[in-house]
Amino acid sequence: MANENQPTILVTNDDGILAPGIHALVNAVKDLGKVVVVAPNKPQSGMGHAITLNEPLRLKKSNVFGDIEAYECSGTPVDCVKLAKDKILHKKPELCVSGINHGSNSSINIIYSGTMSAAMEAGIEGIPAVGFSLLNYAHDADFTGAQHFAKIIAQQILTAGLPQGTLLNVNIPDLPVDRLNGIKICRQAVAKWEEEYTERNDPAGRPYYWLTGKFVNYDKGEDTDEWALSNGYVSVVPVQYDLTAHHAIAYFNKNWNVNAISTVHHEVHIDTSKSFNDLG
Amino acid sequence: MANENQPTILVTNDDGILAPGIHALVNAVKDLGKVVVVAPNKPQSGMGHAITLNEPLRLKKSNVFGDIEAYECSGTPVDCVKLAKDKILHKKPELCVSGINHGSNSSINIIYSGTMSAAMEAGIEGIPAVGFSLLNYAHDADFTGAQHFAKIIAQQILTAGLPQGTLLNVNIPDLPVDRLNGIKICRQAVAKWEEEYTERNDPAGRPYYWLTGKFVNYDKGEDTDEWALSNGYVSVVPVQYDLTAHHAIAYFNKNWNVNAISTVHHEVHIDTSKSFNDLG
Repeated sequence: MANENQPTILVTNDDGILAPGIHALVNAVKDLGKVVVVAPNKPQSGMGHAITLNEPLRLKKSNVFGDIEAYECSGTPVDCVKLAKDKILHKKPELCVSGINHGSNSSINIIYSGTMSAAMEAGIEGIPAVGFSLLNYAHDADFTGAQHFAKIIAQQILTAGLPQGTLLNVNIPDLPVDRLNGIKICRQAVAKWEEEYTERNDPAGRPYYWLTGKFVNYDKGEDTDEWALSNGYVSVVPVQYDLTAHHAIAYFNKNWNVNAISTVHHEVHIDTSKSFNDLG
Repeated sequence: MANENQPTILVTNDDGILAPGIHALVNAVKDLGKVVVVAPNKPQSGMGHAITLNEPLRLKKSNVFGDIEAYECSGTPVDCVKLAKDKILHKKPELCVSGINHGSNSSINIIYSGTMSAAMEAGIEGIPAVGFSLLNYAHDADFTGAQHFAKIIAQQILTAGLPQGTLLNVNIPDLPVDRLNGIKICRQAVAKWEEEYTERNDPAGRPYYWLTGKFVNYDKGEDTDEWALSNGYVSVVPVQYDLTAHHAIAYFNKNWNVNAISTVHHEVHIDTSKSFNDLG
Protein backbone atom coordinates (compact mmCIF):
# COMPACT_ATOMS: atom_id res chain seq x y z
CA MET A 1 0.00 0.00 0.00
CA ALA A 2 2.98 2.35 -0.40
CA ASN A 3 2.03 3.16 -4.00
CA GLU A 4 2.26 6.92 -4.48
CA ASN A 5 -0.42 6.85 -7.14
CA GLN A 6 -3.04 5.47 -4.84
CA PRO A 7 -5.81 7.84 -3.83
CA THR A 8 -5.81 9.49 -0.42
CA ILE A 9 -9.02 8.83 1.50
CA LEU A 10 -9.93 11.05 4.46
CA VAL A 11 -12.15 9.33 7.02
CA THR A 12 -14.12 11.25 9.63
CA ASN A 13 -17.39 11.01 11.60
CA ASP A 14 -19.42 12.69 14.31
CA ASP A 15 -19.68 9.90 16.87
CA GLY A 16 -15.99 10.29 17.73
CA ILE A 17 -12.84 8.35 16.98
CA LEU A 18 -13.72 5.48 19.34
CA ALA A 19 -17.14 4.75 17.80
CA PRO A 20 -17.42 1.29 16.21
CA GLY A 21 -18.97 2.89 13.11
CA ILE A 22 -15.78 4.70 12.07
CA HIS A 23 -13.80 1.50 12.56
CA ALA A 24 -16.22 -0.28 10.22
CA LEU A 25 -15.71 2.53 7.70
CA VAL A 26 -11.91 2.36 7.90
CA ASN A 27 -12.15 -1.39 7.30
CA ALA A 28 -14.45 -0.75 4.35
CA VAL A 29 -12.05 1.63 2.54
CA LYS A 30 -8.59 0.62 3.73
CA ASP A 31 -7.87 -1.42 0.60
CA LEU A 32 -8.97 1.36 -1.76
CA GLY A 33 -6.17 3.85 -1.04
CA LYS A 34 -4.07 5.56 1.59
CA VAL A 35 -6.41 6.12 4.51
CA VAL A 36 -6.00 9.03 6.95
CA VAL A 37 -8.44 9.39 9.85
CA VAL A 38 -9.20 12.76 11.47
CA ALA A 39 -12.14 12.45 13.82
CA PRO A 40 -13.55 14.23 16.89
CA ASN A 41 -12.15 13.21 20.27
CA LYS A 42 -15.69 13.05 21.67
CA PRO A 43 -19.21 12.47 20.33
CA GLN A 44 -20.49 15.39 18.24
CA SER A 45 -23.95 14.22 17.19
CA GLY A 46 -26.42 16.94 16.31
CA MET A 47 -23.66 19.50 15.74
CA GLY A 48 -24.89 20.26 12.24
CA HIS A 49 -22.48 22.44 10.31
CA ALA A 50 -21.02 24.04 13.45
CA ILE A 51 -17.46 25.34 13.25
CA THR A 52 -15.19 26.49 16.05
CA LEU A 53 -14.59 30.23 15.71
CA ASN A 54 -13.68 31.45 19.18
CA GLU A 55 -11.56 28.62 20.58
CA PRO A 56 -8.27 27.20 19.38
CA LEU A 57 -8.32 23.59 18.17
CA ARG A 58 -6.12 20.66 19.16
CA LEU A 59 -4.96 17.71 17.09
CA LYS A 60 -3.45 14.59 18.67
CA LYS A 61 -2.00 11.55 16.98
CA SER A 62 -4.00 8.41 17.71
CA ASN A 63 -3.05 4.76 17.49
CA VAL A 64 -6.54 3.28 17.70
CA PHE A 65 -6.33 2.23 14.04
CA GLY A 66 -2.96 0.49 14.34
CA ASP A 67 -0.80 1.22 11.28
CA ILE A 68 -3.33 3.62 9.78
CA GLU A 69 -2.47 7.31 10.26
CA ALA A 70 -5.05 8.81 12.59
CA TYR A 71 -5.66 11.99 14.61
CA GLU A 72 -8.22 13.00 17.18
CA CYS A 73 -9.42 16.59 17.01
CA SER A 74 -10.96 18.74 19.75
CA GLY A 75 -13.41 20.35 17.33
CA THR A 76 -16.56 19.58 15.38
CA PRO A 77 -16.80 17.23 12.36
CA VAL A 78 -16.52 20.24 10.04
CA ASP A 79 -13.41 21.42 11.89
CA CYS A 80 -11.89 17.95 11.36
CA VAL A 81 -12.24 18.23 7.59
CA LYS A 82 -10.86 21.78 7.47
CA LEU A 83 -7.89 20.96 9.72
CA ALA A 84 -7.14 17.70 7.90
CA LYS A 85 -6.84 19.49 4.59
CA ASP A 86 -4.76 22.41 5.84
CA LYS A 87 -2.54 20.84 8.51
CA ILE A 88 -2.32 17.08 7.87
CA LEU A 89 -2.82 16.26 4.21
CA HIS A 90 -1.63 19.63 2.86
CA LYS A 91 -3.76 18.87 -0.23
CA LYS A 92 -7.23 17.77 -1.20
CA PRO A 93 -7.77 14.03 -0.74
CA GLU A 94 -9.32 12.12 -3.62
CA LEU A 95 -12.25 11.07 -1.41
CA CYS A 96 -13.76 11.96 1.96
CA VAL A 97 -15.95 9.38 3.69
CA SER A 98 -17.85 10.21 6.88
CA GLY A 99 -19.47 7.79 9.31
CA ILE A 100 -20.60 5.13 9.57
CA ASN A 101 -23.06 7.01 11.74
CA HIS A 102 -24.81 5.20 14.57
CA GLY A 103 -28.37 6.10 13.58
CA SER A 104 -30.25 7.37 10.53
CA ASN A 105 -29.45 10.57 8.65
CA SER A 106 -32.21 10.11 6.11
CA SER A 107 -34.57 12.86 4.92
CA ILE A 108 -34.57 15.98 7.15
CA ASN A 109 -31.98 14.49 9.53
CA ILE A 110 -29.28 15.55 7.09
CA ILE A 111 -29.76 19.13 8.31
CA TYR A 112 -28.84 18.30 11.92
CA SER A 113 -26.17 15.71 11.19
CA GLY A 114 -22.51 16.25 11.97
CA THR A 115 -21.72 13.21 9.81
CA MET A 116 -23.33 14.78 6.76
CA SER A 117 -21.97 18.26 7.53
CA ALA A 118 -18.43 16.86 7.46
CA ALA A 119 -19.15 15.32 4.06
CA MET A 120 -20.72 18.58 2.91
CA GLU A 121 -17.69 20.58 4.02
CA ALA A 122 -15.50 18.29 1.92
CA GLY A 123 -17.91 18.76 -0.99
CA ILE A 124 -17.66 22.55 -0.67
CA GLU A 125 -13.87 22.12 -0.88
CA GLY A 126 -14.30 20.25 -4.16
CA ILE A 127 -13.50 16.85 -2.62
CA PRO A 128 -15.73 13.93 -3.70
CA ALA A 129 -17.57 13.10 -0.49
CA VAL A 130 -20.11 10.73 1.00
CA GLY A 131 -21.67 10.19 4.42
CA PHE A 132 -22.82 6.74 5.57
CA SER A 133 -25.34 6.05 8.31
CA LEU A 134 -26.76 2.81 9.71
CA LEU A 135 -30.34 2.74 10.96
CA ASN A 136 -29.31 1.53 14.40
CA TYR A 137 -28.22 3.79 17.26
CA ALA A 138 -26.70 1.03 19.37
CA HIS A 139 -23.01 1.04 20.21
CA ASP A 140 -22.85 -2.67 19.36
CA ALA A 141 -24.89 -2.44 16.13
CA ASP A 142 -23.93 -4.84 13.34
CA PHE A 143 -22.10 -2.78 10.69
CA THR A 144 -21.48 -5.71 8.32
CA GLY A 145 -24.05 -4.68 5.70
CA ALA A 146 -23.24 -0.98 5.98
CA GLN A 147 -19.51 -1.67 5.66
CA HIS A 148 -20.13 -3.80 2.61
CA PHE A 149 -22.07 -1.09 0.76
CA ALA A 150 -19.70 1.65 1.97
CA LYS A 151 -16.90 -0.14 0.15
CA ILE A 152 -18.91 -0.55 -3.07
CA ILE A 153 -19.98 3.10 -3.09
CA ALA A 154 -16.53 4.47 -2.17
CA GLN A 155 -15.03 2.42 -5.00
CA GLN A 156 -17.67 3.67 -7.40
CA ILE A 157 -16.96 7.31 -6.51
CA LEU A 158 -13.19 6.81 -6.86
CA THR A 159 -13.78 5.32 -10.32
CA ALA A 160 -16.58 7.50 -11.69
CA GLY A 161 -16.44 10.70 -9.63
CA LEU A 162 -19.45 12.80 -8.67
CA PRO A 163 -21.22 15.58 -10.58
CA GLN A 164 -19.89 19.01 -9.59
CA GLY A 165 -21.52 20.53 -6.56
CA THR A 166 -22.90 17.25 -5.24
CA LEU A 167 -22.12 14.77 -2.49
CA LEU A 168 -23.94 11.63 -1.36
CA ASN A 169 -26.09 10.85 1.68
CA VAL A 170 -26.15 7.06 2.08
CA ASN A 171 -28.32 5.32 4.66
CA ILE A 172 -28.35 1.59 5.28
CA PRO A 173 -31.22 -0.41 6.78
CA ASP A 174 -30.41 -2.38 9.91
CA LEU A 175 -30.58 -5.77 8.20
CA PRO A 176 -28.20 -8.68 7.66
CA VAL A 177 -26.22 -8.12 4.47
CA ASP A 178 -27.99 -10.95 2.61
CA ARG A 179 -31.36 -9.31 3.26
CA LEU A 180 -30.38 -5.92 1.80
CA ASN A 181 -32.05 -5.44 -1.57
CA GLY A 182 -29.34 -3.28 -3.14
CA ILE A 183 -28.97 0.44 -3.83
CA LYS A 184 -31.65 2.98 -4.79
CA ILE A 185 -30.97 6.55 -5.96
CA CYS A 186 -33.54 8.67 -4.10
CA ARG A 187 -34.72 12.12 -3.18
CA GLN A 188 -34.94 13.39 0.40
CA ALA A 189 -38.39 12.58 1.81
CA VAL A 190 -40.59 15.36 3.20
CA ALA A 191 -40.43 14.50 6.89
CA LYS A 192 -39.71 16.20 10.17
CA TRP A 193 -39.42 15.77 13.91
CA GLU A 194 -42.45 16.54 16.04
CA GLU A 195 -40.68 17.78 19.11
CA GLU A 196 -41.83 17.82 22.66
CA TYR A 197 -39.73 19.11 25.49
CA THR A 198 -40.05 17.28 28.79
CA GLU A 199 -40.14 19.83 31.60
CA ARG A 200 -38.56 19.04 34.98
CA ASN A 201 -37.57 21.10 37.99
CA ASP A 202 -34.11 21.20 39.51
CA PRO A 203 -33.64 20.95 43.31
CA ALA A 204 -33.99 24.75 43.53
CA GLY A 205 -37.37 24.57 41.77
CA ARG A 206 -36.20 26.06 38.48
CA PRO A 207 -37.47 24.38 35.29
CA TYR A 208 -35.28 22.75 32.67
CA TYR A 209 -36.16 21.05 29.40
CA TRP A 210 -35.09 17.83 27.68
CA LEU A 211 -35.60 17.44 23.95
CA THR A 212 -37.74 14.47 22.96
CA GLY A 213 -39.71 13.88 19.82
CA LYS A 214 -40.95 11.54 17.19
CA PHE A 215 -40.07 11.37 13.53
CA VAL A 216 -42.99 11.83 11.14
CA ASN A 217 -42.80 11.05 7.42
CA TYR A 218 -45.38 13.02 5.42
CA ASP A 219 -44.14 11.72 2.08
CA LYS A 220 -45.49 8.50 0.57
CA GLY A 221 -43.41 8.84 -2.62
CA GLU A 222 -41.69 5.62 -3.73
CA ASP A 223 -38.75 7.71 -4.99
CA THR A 224 -37.82 8.84 -1.45
CA ASP A 225 -35.08 7.66 0.88
CA GLU A 226 -37.67 6.75 3.52
CA TRP A 227 -39.47 4.43 1.09
CA ALA A 228 -36.20 2.78 0.02
CA LEU A 229 -35.11 2.20 3.61
CA SER A 230 -38.52 0.79 4.59
CA ASN A 231 -38.23 -1.63 1.71
CA GLY A 232 -34.77 -2.97 2.47
CA TYR A 233 -32.79 -0.79 0.05
CA VAL A 234 -29.67 1.24 0.72
CA SER A 235 -30.78 4.84 0.00
CA VAL A 236 -28.39 7.08 -1.95
CA VAL A 237 -29.47 10.74 -2.07
CA PRO A 238 -27.42 13.15 -4.21
CA VAL A 239 -27.11 16.29 -2.07
CA GLN A 240 -26.19 19.87 -2.94
CA TYR A 241 -24.90 22.78 -0.88
CA ASP A 242 -26.42 25.38 -3.16
CA LEU A 243 -29.47 26.00 -0.98
CA THR A 244 -31.10 28.38 -3.48
CA ALA A 245 -34.73 27.48 -4.18
CA HIS A 246 -34.14 28.17 -7.87
CA HIS A 247 -37.76 27.42 -8.81
CA ALA A 248 -38.92 30.18 -6.45
CA ILE A 249 -36.86 33.00 -7.98
CA ALA A 250 -39.40 33.50 -10.78
CA TYR A 251 -42.21 33.43 -8.22
CA PHE A 252 -40.71 36.30 -6.25
CA ASN A 253 -39.85 38.35 -9.32
CA LYS A 254 -43.45 37.95 -10.51
CA ASN A 255 -45.38 38.25 -7.24
CA TRP A 256 -43.31 40.67 -5.23
CA ASN A 257 -43.30 44.12 -6.68
CA VAL A 258 -39.61 44.44 -5.96
CA ASN A 259 -39.19 47.84 -7.54
CA ALA A 260 -42.15 49.29 -5.70
CA ILE A 261 -41.00 47.82 -2.40
CA SER A 262 -37.55 49.19 -2.98
CA THR A 263 -38.49 52.67 -4.08
CA VAL A 264 -41.23 53.48 -1.59
CA HIS A 265 -38.79 53.00 1.19
CA HIS A 266 -38.10 56.63 1.85
CA GLU A 267 -41.69 57.05 3.02
CA VAL A 268 -41.43 54.37 5.67
CA HIS A 269 -40.80 55.44 9.21
CA ILE A 270 -37.35 54.42 10.38
CA ASP A 271 -36.50 53.92 14.00
CA THR A 272 -33.04 55.13 14.73
CA SER A 273 -30.62 52.73 16.33
CA LYS A 274 -29.57 55.16 19.03
CA SER A 275 -31.27 53.19 21.78
CA PHE A 276 -28.87 50.27 21.28
CA ASN A 277 -25.93 52.21 22.58
CA ASP A 278 -26.68 51.53 26.22
CA LEU A 279 -26.29 47.79 25.69
CA GLY A 280 -22.52 48.02 25.75
CA MET B 1 -51.38 46.20 20.12
CA ALA B 2 -53.65 43.92 22.21
CA ASN B 3 -55.60 42.87 19.13
CA GLU B 4 -56.04 39.09 19.19
CA ASN B 5 -56.09 38.93 15.40
CA GLN B 6 -52.66 40.39 15.01
CA PRO B 7 -49.94 37.99 13.86
CA THR B 8 -47.46 36.55 16.31
CA ILE B 9 -43.86 37.23 15.32
CA LEU B 10 -41.06 35.16 16.82
CA VAL B 11 -37.71 36.97 16.89
CA THR B 12 -34.42 35.15 17.41
CA ASN B 13 -30.75 35.41 16.42
CA ASP B 14 -27.33 33.84 16.93
CA ASP B 15 -25.39 36.78 18.36
CA GLY B 16 -27.32 36.53 21.62
CA ILE B 17 -30.09 38.51 23.26
CA LEU B 18 -27.84 41.49 24.07
CA ALA B 19 -26.60 42.04 20.50
CA PRO B 20 -27.62 45.39 18.97
CA GLY B 21 -28.75 43.55 15.81
CA ILE B 22 -31.67 41.79 17.50
CA HIS B 23 -32.75 45.06 19.07
CA ALA B 24 -32.80 46.64 15.61
CA LEU B 25 -34.92 43.69 14.40
CA VAL B 26 -37.40 43.99 17.26
CA ASN B 27 -37.75 47.69 16.44
CA ALA B 28 -38.27 46.80 12.78
CA VAL B 29 -41.18 44.40 13.40
CA LYS B 30 -42.75 45.56 16.66
CA ASP B 31 -45.56 47.45 14.88
CA LEU B 32 -46.42 44.50 12.63
CA GLY B 33 -47.78 42.13 15.28
CA LYS B 34 -47.31 40.64 18.71
CA VAL B 35 -43.57 40.17 19.08
CA VAL B 36 -42.05 37.43 21.26
CA VAL B 37 -38.26 37.18 21.53
CA VAL B 38 -36.49 33.89 22.32
CA ALA B 39 -32.74 34.25 21.81
CA PRO B 40 -29.53 32.62 23.03
CA ASN B 41 -28.10 33.87 26.33
CA LYS B 42 -24.63 34.02 24.73
CA PRO B 43 -23.17 34.43 21.24
CA GLN B 44 -23.71 31.35 19.05
CA SER B 45 -22.12 32.39 15.76
CA GLY B 46 -20.96 29.54 13.56
CA MET B 47 -23.22 27.04 15.30
CA GLY B 48 -24.87 26.04 12.02
CA HIS B 49 -27.86 23.79 12.56
CA ALA B 50 -26.57 22.43 15.87
CA ILE B 51 -29.17 21.22 18.36
CA THR B 52 -28.71 20.30 22.00
CA LEU B 53 -29.28 16.57 22.44
CA ASN B 54 -27.39 15.58 25.56
CA GLU B 55 -27.93 18.54 27.89
CA PRO B 56 -31.11 20.00 29.34
CA LEU B 57 -32.04 23.51 28.25
CA ARG B 58 -32.90 26.55 30.33
CA LEU B 59 -35.28 29.41 29.56
CA LYS B 60 -35.25 32.65 31.55
CA LYS B 61 -37.54 35.62 31.22
CA SER B 62 -35.71 38.75 30.10
CA ASN B 63 -36.61 42.41 30.41
CA VAL B 64 -34.07 43.80 27.94
CA PHE B 65 -36.88 44.64 25.51
CA GLY B 66 -39.03 46.50 28.03
CA ASP B 67 -42.70 45.62 27.51
CA ILE B 68 -41.99 43.08 24.80
CA GLU B 69 -42.15 39.44 25.98
CA ALA B 70 -38.64 38.00 25.82
CA TYR B 71 -36.70 34.95 26.99
CA GLU B 72 -33.07 34.02 26.99
CA CYS B 73 -32.26 30.40 26.23
CA SER B 74 -29.18 28.37 27.14
CA GLY B 75 -29.16 26.54 23.80
CA THR B 76 -28.41 27.13 20.13
CA PRO B 77 -30.46 29.28 17.73
CA VAL B 78 -32.26 26.14 16.50
CA ASP B 79 -33.04 25.15 20.10
CA CYS B 80 -34.57 28.63 20.60
CA VAL B 81 -37.04 28.11 17.76
CA LYS B 82 -37.99 24.61 18.89
CA LEU B 83 -38.46 25.64 22.53
CA ALA B 84 -40.36 28.81 21.61
CA LYS B 85 -42.93 26.84 19.64
CA ASP B 86 -43.40 24.06 22.18
CA LYS B 87 -43.07 25.84 25.54
CA ILE B 88 -43.74 29.55 25.03
CA LEU B 89 -46.05 30.14 22.08
CA HIS B 90 -47.78 26.73 22.20
CA LYS B 91 -48.53 27.25 18.51
CA LYS B 92 -46.84 28.20 15.26
CA PRO B 93 -46.23 31.94 14.98
CA GLU B 94 -47.26 33.64 11.73
CA LEU B 95 -43.66 34.72 11.09
CA CYS B 96 -40.17 33.99 12.39
CA VAL B 97 -37.46 36.61 11.86
CA SER B 98 -33.83 35.92 12.76
CA GLY B 99 -31.00 38.43 13.13
CA ILE B 100 -30.12 41.07 12.35
CA ASN B 101 -26.79 39.26 12.18
CA HIS B 102 -23.59 41.17 12.77
CA GLY B 103 -21.80 40.11 9.57
CA SER B 104 -22.66 38.63 6.20
CA ASN B 105 -24.50 35.34 5.67
CA SER B 106 -24.42 35.58 1.89
CA SER B 107 -23.56 32.71 -0.46
CA ILE B 108 -21.88 29.72 1.28
CA ASN B 109 -22.01 31.43 4.69
CA ILE B 110 -25.62 30.30 5.01
CA ILE B 111 -24.32 26.79 5.72
CA TYR B 112 -22.39 27.85 8.84
CA SER B 113 -24.82 30.47 10.08
CA GLY B 114 -26.78 30.06 13.28
CA THR B 115 -28.96 32.99 12.19
CA MET B 116 -30.00 31.21 9.01
CA SER B 117 -30.31 27.82 10.72
CA ALA B 118 -32.84 29.31 13.14
CA ALA B 119 -34.84 30.62 10.18
CA MET B 120 -34.50 27.25 8.44
CA GLU B 121 -35.75 25.40 11.51
CA ALA B 122 -38.84 27.63 11.49
CA GLY B 123 -39.25 26.91 7.77
CA ILE B 124 -39.10 23.16 8.41
CA GLU B 125 -41.89 23.68 10.96
CA GLY B 126 -44.00 25.36 8.27
CA ILE B 127 -43.53 28.84 9.72
CA PRO B 128 -42.82 31.65 7.18
CA ALA B 129 -39.26 32.60 8.03
CA VAL B 130 -36.47 34.98 7.10
CA GLY B 131 -32.95 35.68 8.31
CA PHE B 132 -31.39 39.16 8.07
CA SER B 133 -27.68 39.95 8.11
CA LEU B 134 -25.78 43.24 7.87
CA LEU B 135 -22.40 43.28 6.16
CA ASN B 136 -20.66 44.70 9.20
CA TYR B 137 -19.32 42.65 12.10
CA ALA B 138 -18.91 45.57 14.49
CA HIS B 139 -20.88 45.71 17.72
CA ASP B 140 -21.69 49.36 17.02
CA ALA B 141 -22.56 48.90 13.34
CA ASP B 142 -25.29 51.15 11.94
CA PHE B 143 -28.42 48.99 11.55
CA THR B 144 -30.64 51.78 10.18
CA GLY B 145 -30.71 50.53 6.58
CA ALA B 146 -30.98 46.88 7.59
CA GLN B 147 -33.82 47.64 10.00
CA HIS B 148 -35.64 49.58 7.33
CA PHE B 149 -35.56 46.72 4.82
CA ALA B 150 -36.27 44.12 7.51
CA LYS B 151 -39.57 45.88 8.16
CA ILE B 152 -40.50 46.04 4.48
CA ILE B 153 -39.70 42.37 3.90
CA ALA B 154 -41.38 41.15 7.09
CA GLN B 155 -44.50 43.07 6.09
CA GLN B 156 -44.38 41.61 2.61
CA ILE B 157 -44.15 38.04 3.96
CA LEU B 158 -47.04 38.63 6.39
CA THR B 159 -49.13 39.90 3.48
CA ALA B 160 -48.14 37.57 0.65
CA GLY B 161 -46.68 34.50 2.38
CA LEU B 162 -43.85 32.37 1.00
CA PRO B 163 -43.92 29.42 -1.43
CA GLN B 164 -44.07 26.10 0.42
CA GLY B 165 -40.71 24.70 1.44
CA THR B 166 -38.88 28.02 1.17
CA LEU B 167 -37.49 30.70 3.48
CA LEU B 168 -35.48 33.84 2.77
CA ASN B 169 -31.84 34.75 3.28
CA VAL B 170 -31.60 38.55 3.28
CA ASN B 171 -28.27 40.38 3.40
CA ILE B 172 -27.90 44.13 3.58
CA PRO B 173 -24.86 46.15 2.43
CA ASP B 174 -23.22 48.31 5.06
CA LEU B 175 -24.40 51.59 3.56
CA PRO B 176 -26.51 54.51 4.72
CA VAL B 177 -30.19 53.84 3.96
CA ASP B 178 -30.35 56.51 1.25
CA ARG B 179 -27.51 54.81 -0.65
CA LEU B 180 -29.16 51.37 -0.74
CA ASN B 181 -30.43 50.66 -4.26
CA GLY B 182 -33.37 48.46 -3.26
CA ILE B 183 -34.06 44.72 -3.23
CA LYS B 184 -32.82 42.07 -5.67
CA ILE B 185 -34.06 38.45 -5.77
CA CYS B 186 -30.88 36.38 -6.21
CA ARG B 187 -29.32 32.96 -6.21
CA GLN B 188 -26.55 31.90 -3.82
CA ALA B 189 -23.15 32.71 -5.39
CA VAL B 190 -20.56 29.96 -5.84
CA ALA B 191 -18.03 31.04 -3.22
CA LYS B 192 -16.14 29.56 -0.31
CA TRP B 193 -13.67 30.23 2.46
CA GLU B 194 -10.01 29.52 1.82
CA GLU B 195 -9.00 28.51 5.29
CA GLU B 196 -5.68 28.66 6.92
CA TYR B 197 -5.07 27.62 10.47
CA THR B 198 -2.54 29.64 12.42
CA GLU B 199 -0.38 27.29 14.46
CA ARG B 200 0.92 28.31 17.88
CA ASN B 201 2.46 26.46 20.81
CA ASP B 202 1.12 26.54 24.35
CA PRO B 203 3.50 27.05 27.32
CA ALA B 204 4.01 23.26 27.45
CA GLY B 205 5.10 23.23 23.79
CA ARG B 206 1.97 21.57 22.42
CA PRO B 207 0.54 23.02 19.20
CA TYR B 208 -2.91 24.54 18.86
CA TYR B 209 -4.69 26.02 15.86
CA TRP B 210 -6.76 29.14 15.24
CA LEU B 211 -9.10 29.30 12.27
CA THR B 212 -8.39 32.14 9.87
CA GLY B 213 -9.29 32.47 6.23
CA LYS B 214 -10.37 34.61 3.37
CA PHE B 215 -13.62 34.58 1.45
CA VAL B 216 -13.28 33.89 -2.27
CA ASN B 217 -16.11 34.45 -4.76
CA TYR B 218 -15.72 32.30 -7.89
CA ASP B 219 -19.00 33.43 -9.37
CA LYS B 220 -19.23 36.51 -11.58
CA GLY B 221 -22.96 36.03 -12.27
CA GLU B 222 -25.04 39.21 -12.01
CA ASP B 223 -27.92 37.14 -10.65
CA THR B 224 -26.00 36.27 -7.45
CA ASP B 225 -26.25 37.64 -3.94
CA GLU B 226 -22.58 38.65 -4.04
CA TRP B 227 -23.13 40.75 -7.14
CA ALA B 228 -26.20 42.42 -5.64
CA LEU B 229 -24.39 43.25 -2.40
CA SER B 230 -21.35 44.62 -4.25
CA ASN B 231 -23.70 46.88 -6.20
CA GLY B 232 -25.56 48.34 -3.24
CA TYR B 233 -28.63 46.08 -3.37
CA VAL B 234 -30.27 44.18 -0.54
CA SER B 235 -29.93 40.52 -1.62
CA VAL B 236 -32.94 38.23 -1.11
CA VAL B 237 -32.20 34.54 -1.77
CA PRO B 238 -35.09 32.06 -1.61
CA VAL B 239 -33.70 29.06 0.27
CA GLN B 240 -34.88 25.46 0.55
CA TYR B 241 -34.21 22.72 3.08
CA ASP B 242 -34.73 19.94 0.58
CA LEU B 243 -31.02 19.39 -0.08
CA THR B 244 -31.63 16.82 -2.84
CA ALA B 245 -29.63 17.58 -5.99
CA HIS B 246 -32.69 16.68 -8.08
CA HIS B 247 -30.87 17.28 -11.37
CA ALA B 248 -28.29 14.63 -10.40
CA ILE B 249 -30.76 11.77 -9.83
CA ALA B 250 -30.99 11.04 -13.56
CA TYR B 251 -27.19 11.20 -13.79
CA PHE B 252 -26.74 8.48 -11.19
CA ASN B 253 -29.49 6.29 -12.57
CA LYS B 254 -27.87 6.52 -15.99
CA ASN B 255 -24.17 6.38 -15.12
CA TRP B 256 -24.09 4.14 -12.10
CA ASN B 257 -25.04 0.59 -12.93
CA VAL B 258 -27.08 0.43 -9.75
CA ASN B 259 -28.42 -3.07 -10.34
CA ALA B 260 -25.00 -4.48 -11.10
CA ILE B 261 -23.47 -2.79 -8.08
CA SER B 262 -26.25 -4.11 -5.92
CA THR B 263 -26.31 -7.67 -7.18
CA VAL B 264 -22.59 -8.44 -7.36
CA HIS B 265 -22.30 -7.69 -3.73
CA HIS B 266 -22.15 -11.27 -2.54
CA GLU B 267 -18.80 -11.71 -4.28
CA VAL B 268 -17.15 -8.85 -2.41
CA HIS B 269 -14.96 -9.69 0.55
CA ILE B 270 -16.52 -8.51 3.78
CA ASP B 271 -14.49 -7.79 6.88
CA THR B 272 -16.39 -8.87 9.94
CA SER B 273 -16.95 -6.28 12.64
CA LYS B 274 -15.63 -8.53 15.42
CA SER B 275 -12.55 -6.40 15.98
CA PHE B 276 -14.69 -3.45 17.12
CA ASN B 277 -15.80 -5.24 20.24
CA ASP B 278 -12.69 -4.40 22.20
CA LEU B 279 -13.37 -0.67 21.88
CA GLY B 280 -15.98 -0.76 24.64
